[in-house]
Amino acid sequence: MSSVLTPQEVDFPQWYQDVVAKAKLADNGPVRGTMVIRPNGYALWERIQAELDARIKRAGAVNAYFPLLIPNNYLQKEADHVEGFSPELAVVTQGGGRELEEPAIVRPTSETIINASFAKWVQSHRDLPLLINQWANVVRWEMRPRLFLRTSEFLWQEGHTCHATAEEAREYALRIVYEVYQETMRDVMAVPPLLGLKTDKERFAGAIRTYSLEGLMVDGKALQMGTSHELGQNFAKAFDIRYLSVDGEREYVWQTSWGASTRLLGALIMCHGDDNGLRLPPAVAPTQVVIVVVKDGEGVVPAAQALFRELSSAGLRVHLDDQLHTSAGRRIIDWELLGVPVRIEIGPRDLAEGRAMLIRRDTKTKVPVSLGEAVSAVQKMLQEVQESLLTLAERRRAASIIDTASLAEAREAGATGCARVPWDVVRAAEADGTLGKGLSVRCLQRADGSLPEAADEEGLVAYVARAY
Amino acid sequence: MSSVLTPQEVDFPQWYQDVVAKAKLADNGPVRGTMVIRPNGYALWERIQAELDARIKRAGAVNAYFPLLIPNNYLQKEADHVEGFSPELAVVTQGGGRELEEPAIVRPTSETIINASFAKWVQSHRDLPLLINQWANVVRWEMRPRLFLRTSEFLWQEGHTCHATAEEAREYALRIVYEVYQETMRDVMAVPPLLGLKTDKERFAGAIRTYSLEGLMVDGKALQMGTSHELGQNFAKAFDIRYLSVDGEREYVWQTSWGASTRLLGALIMCHGDDNGLRLPPAVAPTQVVIVVVKDGEGVVPAAQALFRELSSAGLRVHLDDQLHTSAGRRIIDWELLGVPVRIEIGPRDLAEGRAMLIRRDTKTKVPVSLGEAVSAVQKMLQEVQESLLTLAERRRAASIIDTASLAEAREAGATGCARVPWDVVRAAEADGTLGKGLSVRCLQRADGSLPEAADEEGLVAYVARAY
Repeated sequence: MSSVLTPQEVDFPQWYQDVVAKAKLADNGPVRGTMVIRPNGYALWERIQAELDARIKRAGAVNAYFPLLIPNNYLQKEADHVEGFSPELAVVTQGGGRELEEPAIVRPTSETIINASFAKWVQSHRDLPLLINQWANVVRWEMRPRLFLRTSEFLWQEGHTCHATAEEAREYALRIVYEVYQETMRDVMAVPPLLGLKTDKERFAGAIRTYSLEGLMVDGKALQMGTSHELGQNFAKAFDIRYLSVDGEREYVWQTSWGASTRLLGALIMCHGDDNGLRLPPAVAPTQVVIVVVKDGEGVVPAAQALFRELSSAGLRVHLDDQLHTSAGRRIIDWELLGVPVRIEIGPRDLAEGRAMLIRRDTKTKVPVSLGEAVSAVQKMLQEVQESLLTLAERRRAASIIDTASLAEAREAGATGCARVPWDVVRAAEADGTLGKGLSVRCLQRADGSLPEAADEEGLVAYVARAY
Repeated sequence: MSSVLTPQEVDFPQWYQDVVAKAKLADNGPVRGTMVIRPNGYALWERIQAELDARIKRAGAVNAYFPLLIPNNYLQKEADHVEGFSPELAVVTQGGGRELEEPAIVRPTSETIINASFAKWVQSHRDLPLLINQWANVVRWEMRPRLFLRTSEFLWQEGHTCHATAEEAREYALRIVYEVYQETMRDVMAVPPLLGLKTDKERFAGAIRTYSLEGLMVDGKALQMGTSHELGQNFAKAFDIRYLSVDGEREYVWQTSWGASTRLLGALIMCHGDDNGLRLPPAVAPTQVVIVVVKDGEGVVPAAQALFRELSSAGLRVHLDDQLHTSAGRRIIDWELLGVPVRIEIGPRDLAEGRAMLIRRDTKTKVPVSLGEAVSAVQKMLQEVQESLLTLAERRRAASIIDTASLAEAREAGATGCARVPWDVVRAAEADGTLGKGLSVRCLQRADGSLPEAADEEGLVAYVARAY
């Protein structure tokens, strides 16, 4: 069954399509560009969601829910915003059997409808900061859909906040970048993100600054995994969100918004997968350990069951596979396809020797372990897999970033990987759209890797790559 | 501030509107009938959702996600289904800047789109039972909206399953009624549901049987809190969902679907609330205990902080209110409005005596407790509140159900409460719509209170009431 995956080297996009289908992660939906997230895919999303949600709450934000349908005139209130989203909108024109007087937009993002509420909720400086998050579906019509990566509907969280000062808004937007997104991506998903500032061209429609977390995939392409925006006072002015300051003045608030979506599943799949299927970091794996009874024999199944109970009691997510009517070889191929980080194989011969075989999914390393020490051995191995996948991803990222000095060099390096180039060198080409076919500036950094305040700071470097 | 709530006796609907607004649970959205669920309301939903989700998983179902947008022709495939939902549909006619060739329906429920996937996923008897749940938003255009109770968009879970036999489907539909819905409503929300079978008239569009869980509110009206449907083979035939049986025959599956929504928040508010605001059962309260520093003094705030840490360490959800710039009286009124089950008041005099005051939100009973015994005293009190709210709701339910023997009696009792009447007595009136203004048969039971198999069993009783 593993042979059904197209090898990555042969055709990476086809490998991706194969693994999403064969591991039963998602299907195409009937309306163009929509997606059915199957249980195997959704279980991954549930884990990522829980990790993000815990960190969002730790950062002080609380969850709420705003309507799916936005009056058309709300979208019009912020000029850049409506211009940015207009080509992608889905429009409801009939409701309850009648033509609507005013069409309703299916939210492509919720800045407008949330800020209409904020205008009512924010009165005094005591109401600030206002830190709100929502888990929701959004619709952006997609002409070139790819499961998880670009879909007409996707699931995400979107945070929206109001602050008394520009500095505080800025700090919060950055706090989200570091403490919510970077931490979840790096420490949970083992996908190390590249942090940077978006260029004016790539910035969110309506923002004054967009910080981005970009993943670099096996094929050298970049994937935008999350963004955090400073909105300045653009929406505050459009929706009249003002507070009474300590000094008795009516002041506009300063805002942020930030989002990460089911796209993260695409990053997870592409960053770690190999020709045998998924390779899941234990922190995000719905099943961390699978016990495979390879052959029956006296006491084998009971021993496997005892092991299952022991590992479960230790807080691990375990599955017992005793489906002996299917060959062990075939079942093992399927568990590899699903990317379960650690596999335990047990059969009569192992049992006779009081041991089982431990196999790492990422490296396929096999280690015999005595049954009495299985729990600690599995815990150790899970930690190794988690660390090892991150180290590998970091090394690959380092290798795929090529330092370049000219536009020609940047174009060449960007065609297969990621070019690091002085911003001044590619700036004009980016502005007039001649950077090169499929290439874009993914983000800007200072020379020391820190985040710039503005795209016109001196000495910035740009990362140029193809992107999903 | 409590005086701002209209007393329940004066105008119950106005009380409801007041408490939803003052406790900041929800606002009206800009598009007709839509709702903004504010953080205080959403925190309740998150807890109910977690409790339902854990039970759904225990019942063997797994989560997945299906598209929001359904092709118009899917809806048409099951005749009763489309007829039932047509008047409530929201229709997307434009996408990505163009008129769509086929309009897309914003899902009012997902039977059709999910069953289109099931037709692909189900091949063999080994694929059964297929037990899927989804957490999602749905849209049903609402002409007489009321926050949480009837809104054009609401949040819910909808389960959809396929089984090899009618019996198995039936058992599963009932398992959901008992182990998921009844348990969550009774043991978590302290809202004891009335279980019954829907009449043919009230049954879900496309089902062969609908089981319902009805709550009886303070004002005597019934609220449908959850339903579980046997779909028979209606959708299986419409979508051609067949499996290869052990005997090698291609058989249609038997199906169920079941849902519960943000309506549950309406039940929670109306079942327990009083003229001072919400009264939350501890199992569902986002904050179970609030420590109110009533007056400052040496060591008071540190003592309150120590108490906070102790209670938090014991696993309780605690909030420390040391906002001394606002009067204690005013803060206490607000905590009562929010329904926090247990309040601890502490001030200099209490501290001098090494004690604090414990107050139950539901009964307003005050008990002094020595600081050293606070944790166990709070735990005991929380349990008492949980039990007491359920007992009270059960007593009220019993009192509002009146045994009646004639249509006239049933009408009279149903006008202010719930009439229990032989089904044969009201059957004709229900069928021809002359039961009485605003009255409906909420559900049918056998005389012993158990669930009937069909509405034409002999000796059934009907519950007649007004409903939300």
